[in-house]
Amino acid sequence: MEFFECVQNRYSYRGAYKSTPVPRENMEKIIKAGLAAPSGCNTQTTSIIGIDDKQILVSIANIVKKNGFKGTLAPAGVCILTQEIPGYADVYFNVQDYSAAIENMLLAITALGYASCWIEGQITESEETQKQIADILKIPKNYIVIGFLPIGVPESEGKRASYKPFSERAWYNVYGSSE
Amino acid sequence: MEFFECVQNRYSYRGAYKSTPVPRENMEKIIKAGLAAPSGCNTQTTSIIGIDDKQILVSIANIVKKNGFKGTLAPAGVCILTQEIPGYADVYFNVQDYSAAIENMLLAITALGYASCWIEGQITESEETQKQIADILKIPKNYIVIGFLPIGVPESEGKRASYKPFSERAWYNVYGSSE
Repeated sequence: MEFFECVQNRYSYRGAYKSTPVPRENMEKIIKAGLAAPSGCNTQTTSIIGIDDKQILVSIANIVKKNGFKGTLAPAGVCILTQEIPGYADVYFNVQDYSAAIENMLLAITALGYASCWIEGQITESEETQKQIADILKIPKNYIVIGFLPIGVPESEGKRASYKPFSERAWYNVYGSSE
Repeated sequence: MEFFECVQNRYSYRGAYKSTPVPRENMEKIIKAGLAAPSGCNTQTTSIIGIDDKQILVSIANIVKKNGFKGTLAPAGVCILTQEIPGYADVYFNVQDYSAAIENMLLAITALGYASCWIEGQITESEETQKQIADILKIPKNYIVIGFLPIGVPESEGKRASYKPFSERAWYNVYGSSE
């Protein structure tokens, strides 16, 4: 898919997914897009676990739903991990790093005809929730679980968020100028 | 440009830029890609200022160079602003929001044949630096200046960062598994 079309097509989907499996070939393309994102001082603080095991998906879906996620189960997903490694001195860019990786993966998911939704708050809301997911995925203590993206073919077209007009969020050369 | 090609082509460029101007049509495409990024609870905390005024570009370049940025001046750029608006309760996603917007813009810049580099630490290293740039761009106090992306045609092919292999950063279903 052409890049600008892909950016405009991406949206947060919270509807039902078809049971069509996501082939490993596509999972790998999505994960590689995530890993190709930049990181502060090239610290590569983001790691990714591709998930297509039904039992694991059910366990994670139950946790995020209990915490208020309104969406439904998809036949696959990726779990995003971060490591708190400083870029330099005591300056950390790992939130920026994983966010860029997530955006790359959301676009890759869109480019392949799947839908997704950035799930973070329902995971990071408590260390207990993060630990529950870390236990399921057997993640060592030096990684922090921060997000999950479902991946699947959408059952229907979801509702897109509305965006403020360009003129309220972007300007040229000085604040407020359209010229 | 095809999405996956664009992701693989993007890299942090710190070399010299040609003087070829960046038409407003392309500036708008880049900024719109940034604004199309998702935001936590659709708070749309990111704003963008497209810059092609030579004097303003020189002023910003001087500031980030003084703070250690090794790159050179480009004929255009975008300055990224954020607002600390909570997604819900006291939970903020504005760092995630602007990082996704920056990644969209870096990919858009790549798709249009330009080069760029994510400049953040040299701006956020002190409130004084952030205020200097805010003054140049006449930005109101409810916005925080957090980043700048140069935009231009690269003079030469830059050096690409090396990436750890897939198997060190990504797994399937449980940590450490390649299956």
